[in-house]
Amino acid sequence: MSVATVHAFAAPAPKAPLEHTTIPRRALGEHDVLIEIRYAGICHSDIHQIREDWGEAIFPMVPGHEIAGVITEVGSGVTRHAVGDRAGVGCFVDSCRDCDNCRAGLEQYCTGSGMLMTYNATGSDGEPTYGGYSTHIVVDENYSVRIPEGITLDEAAPLLCAGITLYSPLAHWKTGPGTRVAIVGMGGLGHMGVKIAHAMGAEVTVLSQSLRKQEDGLRFGAAHFHATGDPATFERLAGSFDLIVNTVSANLDMDAYLGLLRTGGTLVNVGAPENPVPVNMFSLMFGRKHLAGSAIGGIRETQEMLDFCALHGIGADIEVISADGINDAYERVVAGDVRYRFVIDTSTLAAAATP
Amino acid sequence: MSVATVHAFAAPAPKAPLEHTTIPRRALGEHDVLIEIRYAGICHSDIHQIREDWGEAIFPMVPGHEIAGVITEVGSGVTRHAVGDRAGVGCFVDSCRDCDNCRAGLEQYCTGSGMLMTYNATGSDGEPTYGGYSTHIVVDENYSVRIPEGITLDEAAPLLCAGITLYSPLAHWKTGPGTRVAIVGMGGLGHMGVKIAHAMGAEVTVLSQSLRKQEDGLRFGAAHFHATGDPATFERLAGSFDLIVNTVSANLDMDAYLGLLRTGGTLVNVGAPENPVPVNMFSLMFGRKHLAGSAIGGIRETQEMLDFCALHGIGADIEVISADGINDAYERVVAGDVRYRFVIDTSTLAAAATP
Repeated sequence: MSVATVHAFAAPAPKAPLEHTTIPRRALGEHDVLIEIRYAGICHSDIHQIREDWGEAIFPMVPGHEIAGVITEVGSGVTRHAVGDRAGVGCFVDSCRDCDNCRAGLEQYCTGSGMLMTYNATGSDGEPTYGGYSTHIVVDENYSVRIPEGITLDEAAPLLCAGITLYSPLAHWKTGPGTRVAIVGMGGLGHMGVKIAHAMGAEVTVLSQSLRKQEDGLRFGAAHFHATGDPATFERLAGSFDLIVNTVSANLDMDAYLGLLRTGGTLVNVGAPENPVPVNMFSLMFGRKHLAGSAIGGIRETQEMLDFCALHGIGADIEVISADGINDAYERVVAGDVRYRFVIDTSTLAAAATP
Repeated sequence: MSVATVHAFAAPAPKAPLEHTTIPRRALGEHDVLIEIRYAGICHSDIHQIREDWGEAIFPMVPGHEIAGVITEVGSGVTRHAVGDRAGVGCFVDSCRDCDNCRAGLEQYCTGSGMLMTYNATGSDGEPTYGGYSTHIVVDENYSVRIPEGITLDEAAPLLCAGITLYSPLAHWKTGPGTRVAIVGMGGLGHMGVKIAHAMGAEVTVLSQSLRKQEDGLRFGAAHFHATGDPATFERLAGSFDLIVNTVSANLDMDAYLGLLRTGGTLVNVGAPENPVPVNMFSLMFGRKHLAGSAIGGIRETQEMLDFCALHGIGADIEVISADGINDAYERVVAGDVRYRFVIDTSTLAAAATP
């Protein structure tokens, strides 16, 4: 494959609506694979980046880091994948490969060059990276994972970010039978957390603003569901949890949530508010508690997560949309009106080109 | 022993200077020991409580929770101690004894009645507790520890709070050969941290406001000493430490210190500012870092710490004072002018009664 031009949806400028475009994909290198993208999830961080909430961004921007597809071509040196394999790409497409973290399979914490993000970044070739809202992507074989049989590609796509973002802290902090885990917020991230923590054998509690999603929560595997809008919740559940995973990126009262931990427990944040959050050190001292953070997961762990999800029949709860629905979907994501992840059917991207 | 009246130094009212007084000590119960106090350390928290910095307090207040002495009488049911034993009492003199934490030897995190503090608290008998600035104390044998031969009683006294406050997190977070530990602040707490972490085999760095105490730090066992007043310190040491123990109770820039941790590292606070501290969740997410807290230690661990210190020849660096020097010492503690702990020779308490 020489340099190819493929269909995509891009934001031409900050905050602008997304529209059809075409983008180049690099010629297949020795260790590259060409993936025909079938589905791409919409992550809230796509919207943050298009709106430059996290700082200056690169435009035109083709978002999308929840990518599921099929490999249609492989470079001459590829050993990990074959044509026809079902493959996924997540939040990053390269890293230094040499630092302690990369060597340990923690590429997401690469201390060398840092992760090369799947979009809104500049590769070592000086070219911008473009994400999953496109029909094809070329990626190094070491930064693509296998999607096992047993998960449909549309339900698998959100696992590449939402799934691994929850799986990684749940696994790292040893979720299993006998542990009591709370998931704060039941959106795209949180609903995956409930499913995965339940499958790991934990007793799962959802802490959601209201009881509106209670039925879904119990269906996903939660044993308990409480409204954080009710102050009594924080009294009733004081000292209850070994692990709390906070998926909410709004500012929360961290001290109130730390009060829900048992002695030695951990409150891990995977959703991050833009501004610093006040924390009372006494909330940590009395009970030797931990406030922690976690970001996505490494390639090896992402593969482990996909295998785990396939084994337990876990996929995301999704709403599949066409390319022409992306901008509406963005509005609904911002309004919290999605159960629980929008996934773009990328076969509709080309059609959107015709007026 | 029936109820006894003993010499003490007390603050009669909030913020008032301490002066000679006498206080009652309860009749020896079946499981009580009577300790003739020889030395009592001065902890900054004594001053906080007298000044009601942490809320309304009980007066007259006899501070002191770094108590070293000799057992002179034991109750009929006492099995753990004998007359003539060198004994210590720390920050608490009772707890519920029944909750999971008490059963696990984590009395400092008692979730039943909570710890009964050595002073400025009310016992189950309805009487106020009085601390170590006195000639004798009666305490349940389970809340007193043995002070091994090999540490002088004056140098041992500060171990009962400052020593265990540092030992507990250093032990809990697995300090040892190969770990890189930073101690922030080298006062009464910090200087114990340097000695203990070094004895545990870690490579110890002191992070102090200036290089003023560098010579002492290296003598205590630090391999490196850096000034936090120099912004270059935070660039030079980025990503360096497995564990940082912060002993400073002033508001620090937590994000700057989190930047000094390696992936997976922990910043544990043992000194706590009164007000909440802003923390950027991104500082935790990128590198899966932990912000934690730790409070003193349990009885079993306090004994372990004393045995460890005796084995390694570790005591506090102290300045022994007489009772009539307590108020001046308080001023010097507040001014940070102490190397590194004031210890009251309690044999001088009675003499101070004579005008």
